[in-house]
Amino acid sequence: MMKEYIASNKDRFVRELIDWLKIPSVSADSRHREDVRKAAEFLKGKLVDAGADKVEICETKGHPVVYGEKIKDPSLPTVLVYGHYDVQPPDPIEKWNSPPFEPVIKDDKIYARGASDDKGQTYMHVKAFETMVKHDQLPCNVKFMIEGEEEVGSDNLGTFVRENKERLKADIILISDTAIISLEHPSITTGLRGLSYVEVEVTGPNRDLHSGVYGGAVANPINVLCQMIASLHDENGRIAIPGFYDKVVNLSDDERKAINQAPFDPAAYKDDLGIGDVKGEKGFTTLERTGIRPTLDVNGIWGGYTGEGAKTVLPSKASAKISMRLVPNQVSSEITELFTQHFKSIAPKYVKVKVTAHHGGEPVVTPTDSPAYRAASKAFEEVWGKTPIPTRDGGSIPIVALFKKELGLDTVLMGFGLDSDALHSPNEHFGLRNFMLGIETIVAFYQHYAKA
Amino acid sequence: MMKEYIASNKDRFVRELIDWLKIPSVSADSRHREDVRKAAEFLKGKLVDAGADKVEICETKGHPVVYGEKIKDPSLPTVLVYGHYDVQPPDPIEKWNSPPFEPVIKDDKIYARGASDDKGQTYMHVKAFETMVKHDQLPCNVKFMIEGEEEVGSDNLGTFVRENKERLKADIILISDTAIISLEHPSITTGLRGLSYVEVEVTGPNRDLHSGVYGGAVANPINVLCQMIASLHDENGRIAIPGFYDKVVNLSDDERKAINQAPFDPAAYKDDLGIGDVKGEKGFTTLERTGIRPTLDVNGIWGGYTGEGAKTVLPSKASAKISMRLVPNQVSSEITELFTQHFKSIAPKYVKVKVTAHHGGEPVVTPTDSPAYRAASKAFEEVWGKTPIPTRDGGSIPIVALFKKELGLDTVLMGFGLDSDALHSPNEHFGLRNFMLGIETIVAFYQHYAKA
Repeated sequence: MMKEYIASNKDRFVRELIDWLKIPSVSADSRHREDVRKAAEFLKGKLVDAGADKVEICETKGHPVVYGEKIKDPSLPTVLVYGHYDVQPPDPIEKWNSPPFEPVIKDDKIYARGASDDKGQTYMHVKAFETMVKHDQLPCNVKFMIEGEEEVGSDNLGTFVRENKERLKADIILISDTAIISLEHPSITTGLRGLSYVEVEVTGPNRDLHSGVYGGAVANPINVLCQMIASLHDENGRIAIPGFYDKVVNLSDDERKAINQAPFDPAAYKDDLGIGDVKGEKGFTTLERTGIRPTLDVNGIWGGYTGEGAKTVLPSKASAKISMRLVPNQVSSEITELFTQHFKSIAPKYVKVKVTAHHGGEPVVTPTDSPAYRAASKAFEEVWGKTPIPTRDGGSIPIVALFKKELGLDTVLMGFGLDSDALHSPNEHFGLRNFMLGIETIVAFYQHYAKA
Repeated sequence: MMKEYIASNKDRFVRELIDWLKIPSVSADSRHREDVRKAAEFLKGKLVDAGADKVEICETKGHPVVYGEKIKDPSLPTVLVYGHYDVQPPDPIEKWNSPPFEPVIKDDKIYARGASDDKGQTYMHVKAFETMVKHDQLPCNVKFMIEGEEEVGSDNLGTFVRENKERLKADIILISDTAIISLEHPSITTGLRGLSYVEVEVTGPNRDLHSGVYGGAVANPINVLCQMIASLHDENGRIAIPGFYDKVVNLSDDERKAINQAPFDPAAYKDDLGIGDVKGEKGFTTLERTGIRPTLDVNGIWGGYTGEGAKTVLPSKASAKISMRLVPNQVSSEITELFTQHFKSIAPKYVKVKVTAHHGGEPVVTPTDSPAYRAASKAFEEVWGKTPIPTRDGGSIPIVALFKKELGLDTVLMGFGLDSDALHSPNEHFGLRNFMLGIETIVAFYQHYAKA
């Protein structure tokens, strides 16, 4: 029985994941270039062990893609599993209770960078595959495409996909890189926000100045940047970039009602985050603000003296990283362009402004009436005893839109994380129960999908 | 002849200064604690060599004060020389054309952190003193009090002064830590701005969040901090803190006219700084904005992800260092309190705000009708062939007000730097001509002051 195999191999599965988590595969940081490759090599070995064929580290202009497959019979349906083995930077590192790349198990959770996003979730697929192969119960063909640049915008995945259309032929894409509402309320993500990510630099004087000698007469680029950023939202929490909302699809009252029926406890939400109140676009609920409305957040800001003590400098430059989450039918490149034009247009004449585009991604909505969605729903019902709730998530997995465009394939977003997993934050973790149930659910998905 | 002695010892004087500049006495950075002490020891040795008595490294709770004196005759007037041997942090270090603590001479200027502020200017006094002692032409008693915490707010100097009132008895204080208008237009500083320096921290959620999952529903502390900072100035460039201007002395039309008669070329000013335009309080000229009007500048800002690449974080905290330059009769502690109250009052309920006061200092205006001022003026006339212009400087030397209060002494601010010396900036430098003329002018000051 596969269920028993999974249960009895739990310790080994977790030990293997821990070994993978120890490799600091931070794709954003060029100092970790070799570690990213080591994580790819590790995965390659585990796919081979699990029974995959043609396992290969495919070079790209950046970090490689790990590919592997098992073609049982060309007439069977084919599932293309996507995941990523790269992780977010661990900063701010001083806020971790244990080192980010020395995984520890506490309260039945694994704490480590990447524990949930996305090594832990990707590894469930490797172990589900192993389980099915070992029992000769793999009812579909499987292809794995696990990349190393998701956290930096999947810059080279588009080229890889275009150059490997034949090899990547499949019937459905399966991704575990999202969250369920809770262990009591399993859910399937049916919508994701898109992303525009820019870096801005405001330059005032051509050198750092003494704020006593020049202060009051020369525009301070930090003050100017703050004013420019402040002006990007209006008093109703709406984004004040002309044209920003032009393509936003407004949901019907029924659709909004459905979204707001997901279990949500505002008091517990505020309590968990330690905030006095929520804050967002006027006229929308928290679930709507994070699911169906676009946003603009400063992800990082820096300028002037940030060390110990006091320094009376009027700096030459100030910079910020700014990202916008997009919803259907906003287009990432168009929003980046709108931002760039607007930000330059509001720059006062006493500063110079530079805007650099980082990666972007398109918003997506996945169908809930497909055989694959129904198979995923049945798999949850079987393992969790509950019908999963369809949800619209706030995060972005830009490659979902890419796959639709280049391969013509829909995606099932069958994730098993929790919003409280602290993705992209210190003390990221992944519940062992989520990990184990996830493996079972993936196995069940294959059985149902083969019958669909 | 003293003038010839100075000229013929130029190489040695400069060599000694270079040795001193090599010691990275950055008082703000605890990693340089030992270097700060080494700079004090170096100075002690040079004061002894120059002929000072009772030279001593006086311990404080922070970095020590170097004291030395030469009492020729208790009936002669006594000059108390103040200076500082600590320097600003060299950040941003990558903008230096040569390492900040490896002094180089280029175009007749010494480039190094502290070259002008204030090791170079302090060392002129040591060498002027040596010259007078060697020729037995010291016409006054001299006391040296050179501290090591000026760049971090002179936190322990008040205690030192109060505990050493007897030892510090003098007739006038002489400080070289300011600038002349130019080598063609010598000037004497007759006013200095005061300072309030605070650090603010805005906390939103209790941990860094994924900006996709929470963005749009949870206030981003960077966006909030930017809005709060932006609101600190109104559309006329005035500081929008209630009560901020209440004690500001408005100058008469005649006084303003006098200030604006100093040579100033707006086009050259903008050109030098590489800015499209100046920016400041409406209704005032650049010379007024930097001399007689208060300011508010962000000296540093940081929050979120500031590393390479992109990270989609909604950070828990954002911080800024903010300083205000003050003019008579604003009081530093009162302004710090006004700022703190105001900043807390504008904090929206979805964030928490912490304000920490760094050092402050009071604005000062020094008399221009005193024997000491007249002696300084005559010294300039003798050495430079021109009557110095009295100017109001934008910078702060908080201890001038302290000396007046605790010792009852006025100060003559006979500085020899230039605004273009890049104080507090990369590539700080000090003209060798300024250094040599400064030594001569100090010697001349003593001669005239003794006769006054």
